[in-house]
Amino acid sequence: MTDNAVREPRGFAVYTAPAGLADDGRDDFTVLVSTERAVVSAVFTRSRFAGPSVTLSRAAAANLSARGVVVLARNANVATGAQGEANAREVRASVAQALGLSEDELLIASTGVIGRQYPMESIRDHIKTLSTPLPNGGLDRAARAIMTTDTRPKTARAQVGDAVIAGIAKGVGMLEPDMATLLVFFATDAQLDPQEQDRVFRRVMDRTFNALSIDTDTSTSDTAALFANGLAGPVDGVRFEEALYDVALALVKDIAHDGEGAGKLIEVRVSGARDTAQAKRVGKSVVNSPLVKTAVHGGDPNWGRVAMAIGKCSEDTDIDQDKVVIRFGDVAVYPPGTGGPDEDEVRAAVAEQMRGSEVVIGIDLAVADGAFTVYGCDLTEGYVRLNADYST
Amino acid sequence: MTDNAVREPRGFAVYTAPAGLADDGRDDFTVLVSTERAVVSAVFTRSRFAGPSVTLSRAAAANLSARGVVVLARNANVATGAQGEANAREVRASVAQALGLSEDELLIASTGVIGRQYPMESIRDHIKTLSTPLPNGGLDRAARAIMTTDTRPKTARAQVGDAVIAGIAKGVGMLEPDMATLLVFFATDAQLDPQEQDRVFRRVMDRTFNALSIDTDTSTSDTAALFANGLAGPVDGVRFEEALYDVALALVKDIAHDGEGAGKLIEVRVSGARDTAQAKRVGKSVVNSPLVKTAVHGGDPNWGRVAMAIGKCSEDTDIDQDKVVIRFGDVAVYPPGTGGPDEDEVRAAVAEQMRGSEVVIGIDLAVADGAFTVYGCDLTEGYVRLNADYST
Repeated sequence: MTDNAVREPRGFAVYTAPAGLADDGRDDFTVLVSTERAVVSAVFTRSRFAGPSVTLSRAAAANLSARGVVVLARNANVATGAQGEANAREVRASVAQALGLSEDELLIASTGVIGRQYPMESIRDHIKTLSTPLPNGGLDRAARAIMTTDTRPKTARAQVGDAVIAGIAKGVGMLEPDMATLLVFFATDAQLDPQEQDRVFRRVMDRTFNALSIDTDTSTSDTAALFANGLAGPVDGVRFEEALYDVALALVKDIAHDGEGAGKLIEVRVSGARDTAQAKRVGKSVVNSPLVKTAVHGGDPNWGRVAMAIGKCSEDTDIDQDKVVIRFGDVAVYPPGTGGPDEDEVRAAVAEQMRGSEVVIGIDLAVADGAFTVYGCDLTEGYVRLNADYST
Repeated sequence: MTDNAVREPRGFAVYTAPAGLADDGRDDFTVLVSTERAVVSAVFTRSRFAGPSVTLSRAAAANLSARGVVVLARNANVATGAQGEANAREVRASVAQALGLSEDELLIASTGVIGRQYPMESIRDHIKTLSTPLPNGGLDRAARAIMTTDTRPKTARAQVGDAVIAGIAKGVGMLEPDMATLLVFFATDAQLDPQEQDRVFRRVMDRTFNALSIDTDTSTSDTAALFANGLAGPVDGVRFEEALYDVALALVKDIAHDGEGAGKLIEVRVSGARDTAQAKRVGKSVVNSPLVKTAVHGGDPNWGRVAMAIGKCSEDTDIDQDKVVIRFGDVAVYPPGTGGPDEDEVRAAVAEQMRGSEVVIGIDLAVADGAFTVYGCDLTEGYVRLNADYST
């Protein structure tokens, strides 16, 4: 269970400021650091156009040790060539110097428009104002400063033993994580063995952020990292994994609800698959289908589109349409009746399910016992409007 | 070159009528038959939820011989179970009987809402009114009768020697053909060797309808077939392939322009790929990206989204972002300049390219010499509106 009223994890400092990445005066520059050495677990986008922030951070996190992250919002610094890489290195080095850290103790993350250089003069001026020690706490402020088109900050917390796990995330579009996700950072004062923490983190990411799709587009900048400074002492590994899962899933659902222009969370629970991979593939095919997403948006009980989206998995020749079962909430819609009033009753019941803000679609493939649940959102006119003139 | 003013191919009869599949009195029932034996080449959806129309037609076309096709629009007859299959068999058998043909000389195709049974009483009544011989010609009328949410019929014709190839197609959404496509039928009076015709047909489909994506959703009903009755005598195989390609490409472009809610054709030309498959994969990733599609819709010169969409092909580890070249029309946008006015000039030039009704994106991967061109359309509020309440 998450509870946003629990205290902040101990020993994390946060700095946010408007550094001129956009013109609107909003905070767009964030530094989140542990006051002590911390164990880091991190995963990143697998994009072939990953930006220099991702490259630098991947290298920095490889030894499972880091102090924190600097985040620039409103500019992705991607597809910016050698100049963009030099700028990323300079920003990270300057922040590290101001904080008395070495460069490779800091991750860097950047999100926003692709193909534009940082406004370096403005950023340099702002970094000069950094003074140590940074203020303690303020994760909620960080959650707001890392936003781009998010309509609200996303935060979640949970207690585990004497420790607290706090998560912040941003991300609304360009969101089909594969090995990683948008920007999501967890801070905890729990103490864990670094290797064990890394395994737990990757398992939880697989079942949460890697199960989330907004629009099938994978960001060039996806970064997820957990910093653990151990100030609250050792915790039970199993309970830590449960708590981290709860925090991550709360953030995932919050992101899906806040997907660009989105109004509804879609949850697709696939069971009876050959294996987890097949369950995930079928779930993604359904949750990503523009026709399923628009039907959910319109509350159109057009469940046939779920059958269509399952059918798209044409390599899965063990899927037999005569054995598949499809449900909306607790309403069985397929296999079909034989026409007449039954058909209309089913549609009316599905329309009722669709009135809620969370639509749960259940699919049993009747092949074996693989299962996976994916999360997404509806597709709306608002998504189109928002993205039709994003960079201008 | 296509020319819609050339005569109809000889020896094809067409019947259309409103058979009550929808309530609006529009023609929704079409029979297209050759007056003579004909060679048929056909490809179908690979969906695991393919309907009984596809199953029956695939079997009928297996011997490369058929007389024609009966098409029902406004109801896909998919996910309708044993009753749906019995209905498809009955419709085809009844039409065949009325025309004095055997069942397996007729293909059957169906398109529209999934998960609803045919209104059989109304269809039976209409089939009773079929009388032979059917009227000659009328392919334009057939193009109209097979429409669902299409805003206009799609037809194209070309002359090859003494013969004519005429094509009709419908399809606006649920359109990511893989092995096949929506409903597209070609009638020709050219005479070709059946095996050679089949090879030519499949090659042309691969470069045209299989290169087209509207929304990544694959129909359960996709059917493409070419009927050749030989009445105009033998034709040169190479020239026939060119003419069939011209007709098919004209239909593809017409469909992309008429994609649900679409305003613009997007053409993505990928070169320098490891092989054709990689070129097609990258092209599809770009043309299907919701963020690229919305940017084109809004005329937003946000070319970074093309880089993002290339980067999504994360398995293609030979794609090196330092070698890739991206163009909009004749404007090179990537690799980038070093900031300042150049960036803005590029964006202005891209915005100019986007003002046209056809946006051409060129991508050179600089890996080897594989090439492929794909076609798609922009994503608009109209697509969302149209699909949010399609079945109700």
